[in-house]
Amino acid sequence: MILGAIEAGGTKFVCGIGNENGDIIEKISFPTTTPEETLKLVTDYFKDKQIEALGVGSFGPIDLNTENSTYGFITSTPKKHWKNVNLLGELKKHIDVPMAFDTDVNAAALGELEWGAAKGLDSCIYMTVGTGIGVGAVAEGKLIHGMLHPEMGHILVKRHENDTYKGNCPFHGDCLEGMASGPAIENRWGQKGVVLSANPQVWELEAYYLAQALVNYILVLSPKKLILGGGVMQQKQLFPIIIENVVTLLNGYIQHENLLVNIDNYIVPPELGDNAGLCGALALAKNMISKLS
Amino acid sequence: MILGAIEAGGTKFVCGIGNENGDIIEKISFPTTTPEETLKLVTDYFKDKQIEALGVGSFGPIDLNTENSTYGFITSTPKKHWKNVNLLGELKKHIDVPMAFDTDVNAAALGELEWGAAKGLDSCIYMTVGTGIGVGAVAEGKLIHGMLHPEMGHILVKRHENDTYKGNCPFHGDCLEGMASGPAIENRWGQKGVVLSANPQVWELEAYYLAQALVNYILVLSPKKLILGGGVMQQKQLFPIIIENVVTLLNGYIQHENLLVNIDNYIVPPELGDNAGLCGALALAKNMISKLS
Repeated sequence: MILGAIEAGGTKFVCGIGNENGDIIEKISFPTTTPEETLKLVTDYFKDKQIEALGVGSFGPIDLNTENSTYGFITSTPKKHWKNVNLLGELKKHIDVPMAFDTDVNAAALGELEWGAAKGLDSCIYMTVGTGIGVGAVAEGKLIHGMLHPEMGHILVKRHENDTYKGNCPFHGDCLEGMASGPAIENRWGQKGVVLSANPQVWELEAYYLAQALVNYILVLSPKKLILGGGVMQQKQLFPIIIENVVTLLNGYIQHENLLVNIDNYIVPPELGDNAGLCGALALAKNMISKLS
Repeated sequence: MILGAIEAGGTKFVCGIGNENGDIIEKISFPTTTPEETLKLVTDYFKDKQIEALGVGSFGPIDLNTENSTYGFITSTPKKHWKNVNLLGELKKHIDVPMAFDTDVNAAALGELEWGAAKGLDSCIYMTVGTGIGVGAVAEGKLIHGMLHPEMGHILVKRHENDTYKGNCPFHGDCLEGMASGPAIENRWGQKGVVLSANPQVWELEAYYLAQALVNYILVLSPKKLILGGGVMQQKQLFPIIIENVVTLLNGYIQHENLLVNIDNYIVPPELGDNAGLCGALALAKNMISKLS
């Protein structure tokens, strides 16, 4: 089965061809310039690829409600030229196969569930901590949507008593993204996180906020795996500190071996590495074929 | 279709007979004493009722993992005599019909989705604020479970700067339940909430905590309806203050008419009233029949 995949990001569109086992056969990137330019390159690429379905994991916010006239649109993004762009419609004009469309992080969660760190499970969370904080979730075997798609990178967190940084979320100030994204680290400490690796204070504080979010996700969704990726999570020293904070905050309330004995295997990095986004889009395409057959 | 329903509570077991339209034909209550006594009364009641399926919504925590040897058990409850009781197994010994088992709040969420405030939708949250705070959730048409069932009454909240009450959750101190349950109100103010109706400070603070929880549920699950019941929510003056706080906290981030123009119809009381729990159990039974057919 030949499947197409697009990881639509604010910097580049990664396009690829793969199969139902999650193997990427080829991939290529196009810079995200204007919709006209970028989507021309994308649709030309797929023209003779004979794909059976196409999965698209996109930056957002996006409209996923199939009943809306704006279904498949990128909606209120601050990204220049891309506000209210009919991404899915433009692809459909040129590529005549079934298409699945979801957020980049929901796609990544599904990819990790199919072929990565949550393989064989029916639920997981995928969180990326980078320029922003995005989270995708599968529960009961299905990607979660509702009124809109989840936006759990913006959940409320308690401020650390010694942290005077006011937060940089334009909507909420000191929500999770406002306190713990890559730019928040840089604003607070005056240097990029990548050069602060050796400063334990930076990562203690970062873990303090990320752990609160994970605790709330555990209490709300009870996911079977928590997968943490993105640029900031390249600081691998974060994992043990996050885990320590999660254990302290839950304080034995959730009686499950995932938390009590096996937590190093519960809060983990992604397994699909650089291909996480593209594999996620591939998983969306695979899911679409399953639904149709 | 004749369906059986049990709302298993720490004070009483409410049992009833109903149909697939959510009509309760008869109901009866038995006090929750010992498992032997109470379950004898319950199973005797259903003996000649010719039900086609039985739904059970139970106090918890309970084991909902069908692969576990303790599936259907009430597990680590502090309720005397009921710890590690095989509730479902005991019912199955005496009643030979398909049974569905879930938490009381998940059942109530499903009932409201079938016949109540969330009728026609495929997602909702049902929150009860009383002796404890319990929350059930439907997403993508399915009740949410994962590693265990959700325990979102215990999510973390920011303390109000003028609130010196330390919280009464034995696990987390000042989590949501620790700060906003009925007993927390009574401990903080020295009187039961029901006699404090006229004191606006009480309800401003209560709404401050409940709204934080709702905002996090919206960001994580994006539910299409938020239904708030239980003893504390009988203080109807809470609704407008909660709504005001939710709007302030989200600050326009979620662009949806449910929040922007129609929020009075988004954050609402239950519609099934006194029968919410029993109707929920009935909905579990109805779901079970659908799955089998």
